[in-house]
Amino acid sequence: MNLSKPILLSGGAIGGGKEPLVCTPLVAKNEQAVLLELTALIAKSPDIIEWRVDFFEGIDETSRVISLAQKIRQSAQGIPIIFTRRSTREGGELIPIDEDQVLDLYRAVCVSQYVDMVDYELSSDPVHFQVALEAAHEAGMKLIASYHNFEQTPAIEQIVEKFVMAEKSGADIAKVAVMPQAIEDVLTLLAATLEGHRSVKLPIISMSMGSYGSLSRLFGWAFGSSVTFAMGDKASAPGQMPIEELRVVLEILQRSLSPK
Amino acid sequence: MNLSKPILLSGGAIGGGKEPLVCTPLVAKNEQAVLLELTALIAKSPDIIEWRVDFFEGIDETSRVISLAQKIRQSAQGIPIIFTRRSTREGGELIPIDEDQVLDLYRAVCVSQYVDMVDYELSSDPVHFQVALEAAHEAGMKLIASYHNFEQTPAIEQIVEKFVMAEKSGADIAKVAVMPQAIEDVLTLLAATLEGHRSVKLPIISMSMGSYGSLSRLFGWAFGSSVTFAMGDKASAPGQMPIEELRVVLEILQRSLSPK
Repeated sequence: MNLSKPILLSGGAIGGGKEPLVCTPLVAKNEQAVLLELTALIAKSPDIIEWRVDFFEGIDETSRVISLAQKIRQSAQGIPIIFTRRSTREGGELIPIDEDQVLDLYRAVCVSQYVDMVDYELSSDPVHFQVALEAAHEAGMKLIASYHNFEQTPAIEQIVEKFVMAEKSGADIAKVAVMPQAIEDVLTLLAATLEGHRSVKLPIISMSMGSYGSLSRLFGWAFGSSVTFAMGDKASAPGQMPIEELRVVLEILQRSLSPK
Repeated sequence: MNLSKPILLSGGAIGGGKEPLVCTPLVAKNEQAVLLELTALIAKSPDIIEWRVDFFEGIDETSRVISLAQKIRQSAQGIPIIFTRRSTREGGELIPIDEDQVLDLYRAVCVSQYVDMVDYELSSDPVHFQVALEAAHEAGMKLIASYHNFEQTPAIEQIVEKFVMAEKSGADIAKVAVMPQAIEDVLTLLAATLEGHRSVKLPIISMSMGSYGSLSRLFGWAFGSSVTFAMGDKASAPGQMPIEELRVVLEILQRSLSPK
């Protein structure tokens, strides 16, 4: 229906261009648990898997991370993988390494080719952001420039500005996740998504979080969001719904939204 | 969850206060077809049935209308009934009687007590509107003051003004149905619904029509719309979805929207 933009990897558009793409997070703490969680996710056929490495207890040992990334890749049955260290500033877990070490880890993971995309935050130090961007691009990875606000939903113009900043930064995909304080904030996020989708060339990803925000996880794609995050096994952010339920709703919505 | 207002009849809140209430239209052309359609609808347990009498070939014979209203009531298993003549100005069928005859019919149907609510358009001649209102209230019926726009979606303030006008008119329920020309118009209708819900004391009903508008039929209740219209057997307006599909989505939405 082309209400959102496809995400292009070297092998072509993820999911063959279907919309929205459904991404499920991997949030387990050690190798065994991650691989078990992965098996459970794969059975649900997500279009993308996001490995939230800030949940991984071995994040401070590059060799453990690379080794696990390899195992994830081997088990992922070709499903594209996003590698993400979410900072504590934007809702991530506390980790025992500093930002330079994080960037070394990003570089090593990109070089390994065991993932397809990396997520790095737009609010990072610009020097750090540039390092992450170059690490990704030199290895042929896509960079998702992300912005999270767990407190509130900024005004439409401010959200659109994040999408524009992501494009100017040289990133390949722009992501915005915000928290509604009232149900009207869900409309704000959707209106900003539509404007962002029309304002930038990049594929964009957006969501309103929490209970009310779950509405946006269902139909944000109709306003231009290319990806929706759903719970495979465990949620990585408030308001994610089980992938099975999401799919039921999406199928009905897609039938309804098709011009008769 | 109380995101919308209950609709109160003498027997209490329709549907015991559940939200949204699901209304299915009766749009068949003759007695036999109406009663067959009704049987099909009843099997799907709508919360409200709307008899669109402008589709009925016997609209010009009061005794046929009353007799059929009685049969509908007898078969409706206690489900509340809205009696509606939609004018051609607002998307209804062409009928062979004039407005004075329509009002005589409304009065006769109200007196019969075979229905619970009547719908009359806000755009009607104020003298006619007053006659309809008195006919309803003298018989203990609720009046829905409705506004339909099949061309476009007016600005938020103009839509809110319709809800306010309905309240000022003395009606019991205010209904607005508008057509989106682009997906952002669905956001306009939802924002106007929320503002209308907060601005007036009446229960309100709203929907955006057509393909895009079907989104509002699914989650307009989260923005304050007390009733959503679904297809039981045949649609009475563009974008109505089958009641079974609507219910599947509503159940998932309600789980998602409940604070965890």
